[in-house]
Amino acid sequence: MSDTVIRFDLPQSDIPHHWYNIQADLPRPLPPVLHPGTHQPIGPADLEPLFPMALIMQEVSQDRYIEIPDEVREIYKLWRPTPLLRARRLEKMLDTPAHIYYKYEGVSPSGSHKLNTAVPQAYFNKQEGVSGLTTETGAGQWGTALSQACSFFGMECVVYMVKVSYEQKPYRAAIMRSFGASVTPSPSSLTQAGRGILAQNPHSTGSLGIAISEAVEAAATSGGKYKYALGSVLNHVLMHQTVIGQECLKQMEVAGAYPDVIIAPTGGGSNFAGISLPFVHQNLTAGKKTRILAIEPAACPSLTRGKYVYDFGDTAGIAPMVKMYTLGHGFVPAPLHAGGLRYHGMASVVCELYDQGLIEAQAVPQLETFSAAITFARAEGIIPAPEAAHGIAGAIREAQAAKEAGEKRVILFNLCGHGHFDMSAYTAYMNDELTDYEYPQEAIEAAMAQLPQI
Amino acid sequence: MSDTVIRFDLPQSDIPHHWYNIQADLPRPLPPVLHPGTHQPIGPADLEPLFPMALIMQEVSQDRYIEIPDEVREIYKLWRPTPLLRARRLEKMLDTPAHIYYKYEGVSPSGSHKLNTAVPQAYFNKQEGVSGLTTETGAGQWGTALSQACSFFGMECVVYMVKVSYEQKPYRAAIMRSFGASVTPSPSSLTQAGRGILAQNPHSTGSLGIAISEAVEAAATSGGKYKYALGSVLNHVLMHQTVIGQECLKQMEVAGAYPDVIIAPTGGGSNFAGISLPFVHQNLTAGKKTRILAIEPAACPSLTRGKYVYDFGDTAGIAPMVKMYTLGHGFVPAPLHAGGLRYHGMASVVCELYDQGLIEAQAVPQLETFSAAITFARAEGIIPAPEAAHGIAGAIREAQAAKEAGEKRVILFNLCGHGHFDMSAYTAYMNDELTDYEYPQEAIEAAMAQLPQI
Repeated sequence: MSDTVIRFDLPQSDIPHHWYNIQADLPRPLPPVLHPGTHQPIGPADLEPLFPMALIMQEVSQDRYIEIPDEVREIYKLWRPTPLLRARRLEKMLDTPAHIYYKYEGVSPSGSHKLNTAVPQAYFNKQEGVSGLTTETGAGQWGTALSQACSFFGMECVVYMVKVSYEQKPYRAAIMRSFGASVTPSPSSLTQAGRGILAQNPHSTGSLGIAISEAVEAAATSGGKYKYALGSVLNHVLMHQTVIGQECLKQMEVAGAYPDVIIAPTGGGSNFAGISLPFVHQNLTAGKKTRILAIEPAACPSLTRGKYVYDFGDTAGIAPMVKMYTLGHGFVPAPLHAGGLRYHGMASVVCELYDQGLIEAQAVPQLETFSAAITFARAEGIIPAPEAAHGIAGAIREAQAAKEAGEKRVILFNLCGHGHFDMSAYTAYMNDELTDYEYPQEAIEAAMAQLPQI
Repeated sequence: MSDTVIRFDLPQSDIPHHWYNIQADLPRPLPPVLHPGTHQPIGPADLEPLFPMALIMQEVSQDRYIEIPDEVREIYKLWRPTPLLRARRLEKMLDTPAHIYYKYEGVSPSGSHKLNTAVPQAYFNKQEGVSGLTTETGAGQWGTALSQACSFFGMECVVYMVKVSYEQKPYRAAIMRSFGASVTPSPSSLTQAGRGILAQNPHSTGSLGIAISEAVEAAATSGGKYKYALGSVLNHVLMHQTVIGQECLKQMEVAGAYPDVIIAPTGGGSNFAGISLPFVHQNLTAGKKTRILAIEPAACPSLTRGKYVYDFGDTAGIAPMVKMYTLGHGFVPAPLHAGGLRYHGMASVVCELYDQGLIEAQAVPQLETFSAAITFARAEGIIPAPEAAHGIAGAIREAQAAKEAGEKRVILFNLCGHGHFDMSAYTAYMNDELTDYEYPQEAIEAAMAQLPQI
């Protein structure tokens, strides 16, 4: 008993040397991204004011593997490889024959998987002489990760933080500032976009859409000094996250098992893609049959209730148009505590896999995710981020299904971050102040009706 | 370059099987603990209302090694062995020839080393049929750890939290409640001690001394249902922490180095003892000559400016008397942000080692510790707890001394916890609202004058 291993570590030499690019293996290529005005496919030149050429090339690359630069791997070593654990105490608590494994990305210094892409994004910008990055942040996970990454490379970081979050989560801004970032509540008077909003409503508490507009404008008008960074959705962002799944492949081998099902929360798609794409690769090329299950909030059910059509990437309709499962860019999600899962659309790669039947999706209500989080915390000790709790809820459903079926099912899920900065949400849950949100079909239809006609 | 290893992991089979008890190797035995009323040595029977017999026996044991029960090792596996890292980015930033290693205890689910002793304390109580534990907490690290440990063993946890901390740090209470603990702001009307204080001052914001009185009373008057648990100072608590140093011994071997100097913050003494005692053992028995350096706050300098005399363990003078370096139980420390380092005395084991010249001590001012914390965070990514920042400040001093001396000095320090729940302190530091505190000698003399005459 005493020498049962429950954590499967890898040496640092096993940090992947390449990112895996699923575009090389997709049975059907990704639909083109369209210009929001002309509705014509956009090319690398269109993206150059915002992104460095190395990342633009990664965005459209068809190469299966892209080498991770030494300088990026050196920084990954501060926390990678991350641990893979078998949740034996949770299994026992659920009295399930399933074997439940989880990959824990919360050990990253920023507390979530976001740092996996923040570091290479900062690096490739630095390589092309960019002196700083602008970005938006809502709950703050992404802003924290980018602040750290910029600090590692001696770059400036300019964060526009949704004002209501800025005021409700002062400690998030404090962390970013500890790493030298400038954090501005949005809307601000620093940009034309912000001033426009403030002129209409001086008391605006902001939105992610407004913060994006400010961050994009700050980069685009900086004369090349700053570029812009995004924390999810784009192909290169998802690709950077594949270090997660590649490590899992090796760790499951060390554990002497192979997953029957992989589960991850899905907002923009990056943490889901990070753990699952290397296993999708095995399904596509090595005859494996792992089920890949995306878990989204019932309050923002883009895969399970959206349509697969062209829509704007942003709320205001000025970002490029992407074919994706969308609830409509005018869809206003409920004030869900899993702030990272409130995007109206979904990464193109994830949508294609879903449309081609290569992955599954389920929507879970908010209260179920918090109940799952508390169960998990008491079993395994870790307080998960509300986003990560969606993966746990999915894993618990699977473990219960395995029990009903009397099957020893091997479940692997991605615990993408800790909840140390989300305790106000837990307090609300424990005080019975949270509710479930289920959108009426009419509201979704109304948002859909605003979709651009392509 | 790319395959330089900076993290030295151990397999779970290398989690220690025994705690190391330095009482077996002390050149001179510990002075006896005295009854606060009679001033006579106290025996196991005196402690029985508060602690289970297994822990009382550990407290006075002269055995060099005490076996860690399987059930405790199984729970240690949720986070142990903890990582040992080489701070190469910090070395570069300081431009020092020193090699700086740090042991990171912040990966524990509770976020600090405290869980190392909370788990065995809960276990041994459970073994003797105790159904719950009472304790006090100030900043909240210890209350969090004990809540988790009780949850793992299905025990109740009753935490008295200093009222001012309870109000300033609501998220700490939320975590403890997530693990099922009951958290009561102290002074409370639940105990005679609390009611007494409230009768005198209905608006009392509490103190650690009052919270201790409430927790002790709640255990002592429970008819054996509850016992009491303490997070530092006692011999058995320090001994449980030796898993840290034992792992370091193996990890330094993996790293191919041996420390010239070991550095840790010192409040009650448990994290300092945890990393250093196994190396003191090597110094005493294997001819090693590692310098062992305790870092305390200049605002609470018990080792560097206190006297080695008998004093009460608590502020009120009702706890047993211990011979220790003390500033006097009437000493009121400044409102330092490193709440865990504000104890007027020090663990008996640490005091004996200091008095016998086997360890060194330095006091560092508050601002230096925050400056060190920010430097460390930007180099290594981790935001340290203010307590942990004292060890970093000490390590930076050593690295600078090594540079001046032109020496390749091997430094190992204990990073005992993260600062995710201390961002208000960082905010105050970044806003230039913090100051240093240096006690005038007269104030210390005045507190000393209240010492009991033995």
